[in-house]
Amino acid sequence: MAQGYFLSGKHDQVATFDYFFRKCPFKGGYVVFAGTSDFLEILKNFRFNNEELQFLKQKRFKEQFLAFLKKFKFKGTIYSAKEGEIIFPNEPVLRIEGTILEAQIIETLLLNILNFESLIATKASRIRQVAEDKTVLDFGLRRAQGFGGIQASKAAIIGGLDGTSNVFSGMEYDIEVSGTMAHSWIQSFDNELIAFQTYAKFYPDSCVLLVDTFDTINSGIPNAIKVAKELEEKGHQLKAIRLDSGDLAYLSKKARKLLNDADLQYVKIAASNQLDEHLIRSLNEQNAPIDLYGVGTKLVTAYDHPALDGVYKLSSINNKPTLKISENVEKITLPASKKIIRFLNQDGSFNCDGILLENETNVDSILHPHFPTKKTTVTHLKSIELLSKIVDKGELINEIPSVKESAAYAKIQLSKLSAEHRRFDNPHVYKVGISSKLAELRDELINQKH
Amino acid sequence: MAQGYFLSGKHDQVATFDYFFRKCPFKGGYVVFAGTSDFLEILKNFRFNNEELQFLKQKRFKEQFLAFLKKFKFKGTIYSAKEGEIIFPNEPVLRIEGTILEAQIIETLLLNILNFESLIATKASRIRQVAEDKTVLDFGLRRAQGFGGIQASKAAIIGGLDGTSNVFSGMEYDIEVSGTMAHSWIQSFDNELIAFQTYAKFYPDSCVLLVDTFDTINSGIPNAIKVAKELEEKGHQLKAIRLDSGDLAYLSKKARKLLNDADLQYVKIAASNQLDEHLIRSLNEQNAPIDLYGVGTKLVTAYDHPALDGVYKLSSINNKPTLKISENVEKITLPASKKIIRFLNQDGSFNCDGILLENETNVDSILHPHFPTKKTTVTHLKSIELLSKIVDKGELINEIPSVKESAAYAKIQLSKLSAEHRRFDNPHVYKVGISSKLAELRDELINQKH
Repeated sequence: MAQGYFLSGKHDQVATFDYFFRKCPFKGGYVVFAGTSDFLEILKNFRFNNEELQFLKQKRFKEQFLAFLKKFKFKGTIYSAKEGEIIFPNEPVLRIEGTILEAQIIETLLLNILNFESLIATKASRIRQVAEDKTVLDFGLRRAQGFGGIQASKAAIIGGLDGTSNVFSGMEYDIEVSGTMAHSWIQSFDNELIAFQTYAKFYPDSCVLLVDTFDTINSGIPNAIKVAKELEEKGHQLKAIRLDSGDLAYLSKKARKLLNDADLQYVKIAASNQLDEHLIRSLNEQNAPIDLYGVGTKLVTAYDHPALDGVYKLSSINNKPTLKISENVEKITLPASKKIIRFLNQDGSFNCDGILLENETNVDSILHPHFPTKKTTVTHLKSIELLSKIVDKGELINEIPSVKESAAYAKIQLSKLSAEHRRFDNPHVYKVGISSKLAELRDELINQKH
Repeated sequence: MAQGYFLSGKHDQVATFDYFFRKCPFKGGYVVFAGTSDFLEILKNFRFNNEELQFLKQKRFKEQFLAFLKKFKFKGTIYSAKEGEIIFPNEPVLRIEGTILEAQIIETLLLNILNFESLIATKASRIRQVAEDKTVLDFGLRRAQGFGGIQASKAAIIGGLDGTSNVFSGMEYDIEVSGTMAHSWIQSFDNELIAFQTYAKFYPDSCVLLVDTFDTINSGIPNAIKVAKELEEKGHQLKAIRLDSGDLAYLSKKARKLLNDADLQYVKIAASNQLDEHLIRSLNEQNAPIDLYGVGTKLVTAYDHPALDGVYKLSSINNKPTLKISENVEKITLPASKKIIRFLNQDGSFNCDGILLENETNVDSILHPHFPTKKTTVTHLKSIELLSKIVDKGELINEIPSVKESAAYAKIQLSKLSAEHRRFDNPHVYKVGISSKLAELRDELINQKH
């Protein structure tokens, strides 16, 4: 396509593309927007090197086009919601303005990163909801989808996790790293007690003992208690025991009792094994005395909904608004450059969002996108704009936010979303309307095409 | 753990680890083994650089351990089944022999790559089964799990796909690249016909026209027919039209009729939109005249089963066999170094597999792993060994196979697996037994631990 634009002389035509998703994953009511930082980092250095040009030459791309690519650099302008923002279906949360060729050539990169990182940040935020203020760590890298695991660990932090066992991501993104022993540590010693004692010797203040290698109740926990007592004698405290199999509700209660009976109330209980928000909620309901959760596969692959359906659609070409028509009215796109206004209640919580034309300053009401008689008056509400310019003619405007900053922002924003929109079962649909001017423009363009 | 091994002076103890998975994904009966090439490529250059050592120092790792890591290089030995092999639950398809520290420090890397690439190769092989000899292309990168999409496109080729729209993977792995236009191409022109004509002008012999931007039957296909006739006048042929929405069975039949009525029997019909093996099978059953499938999200994320449960377990330490006990007998691991023997029928097709101790040369029968009275006599069967040494004391023994070689091997091996084991619904379980000596050793070790 890029070569086609180039050869037909269209490549300098100005175009606008919107990124948006259509359906919330996990049957949920919101998405935590993530991925813009990684996208901008890659975009900064987006060039075609000689090896790549050589490859394209073999694929019979034309010399004049390859000469163009050799000098290619993204010089477009990007408007975006903040990383960590809470976003909803059909909202154009990122807009690219540039030549049609440059806007198009980065499409897959943009979709790949924003779709995946937003998906995992959203999953993590659901896990955080049920885990409340307990520590939750990501242990997922060994079952993550290949190199995607690097991003998953980071997006999980934006969504609310406390740390990761993925040391590479810890370094790349400056996020907390943490981990414990595996079964092989214990197997590698003559017996479980010696394995525990050796670990405690080298990590006396951060020792988490995995107790299920042979027999949790009859061997693992009694040995952990012995080691805890030995640590006490040396002025240290065993940090936790970890359960990684069996019935976690049953075993955590048994373990808590055994620990308490030994006067080890301070020793925490960590649990892992195929956990997700639903299992953690169930453990809560059973009052399982678990202090720390390790979540893995279900988080880093977004196991029950492993893709976000984000798309990238042309909304104007040559400064003329355009749209894509579909027999499914919900798939008809919104034309022209747009802004998103978030309307707030008195207490700062989110009331509803409105999608307006970029040049609209104010609206009295927003319309349901497909049933224009459904109207919401917004005159009494405060409002903020969600998009701001982050790249101007190819140049970054601000420093790229750190993962910790985006995580902190996501936490604040999620607290402004009501429980009805956050709940897991049949969440109340958050209202996203469009301005009457945008509706008129869209309907006029549909009529022109028919 | 690595530092713990080092500080306790255990790091030079010799250990053996097995990689195996427990459950076939997709409710299927087999897995296509993939990922060894990427794993070996990374292992070749597995070193700790200064930035990484600096990071670990900040995390309070000890100087003497960091000095050790600075010189670290994997010097172990690896036995493995071939990339593209058909493998089954509990088979130790890759074995690492080395010091416990080196074998452990690469665990997550190994699991991450083998689990994911085997998962996607398996998914692709299922899609290939139903697509029979039709062309199937991977279009999944935009919804893949981040950077994992790079590996997904490659693993899909090993599993049997013909090519990918992922140009980066095409270059990295020397695999076929292919693609068509997006809706934005069509939207960017004044009308659909001009968009089609322009594309045909630059790609007269490889032109695939996307016909559903406005109205498939009333606009897209009639315009494609016009362009096909214009191409004919210039001595070219329109390659295909592509359907990307709506009811693909209904639309492909309508499209075929319209094309045939225009004497364009040679113009192929391509289809895409959330396809997987089940949808393609359904299209086949309806005799949908589709010649080429583009599969995306459902393939590259393994949507209905997005992780393979592969594990990495210690099987000997200090040359003494060991195992991990579990209350779930199926989770008790197999001790010692082992080989896998595949028993073949007269025609070369797979009969059953046996897991033997490494030093066993021959067995008369194999036992069910948990019901030893269930025995299969194998004296009349030819046999081959699945594992061979691929790394010797850190050095690669052979060249790493290319993706095309592994894909060709997978194709041959899959043809030797009977339809009963390949079918989607409740597949016949392929028999994997163990030798009586291995069973005895395992049971003896279990008794010692109790």
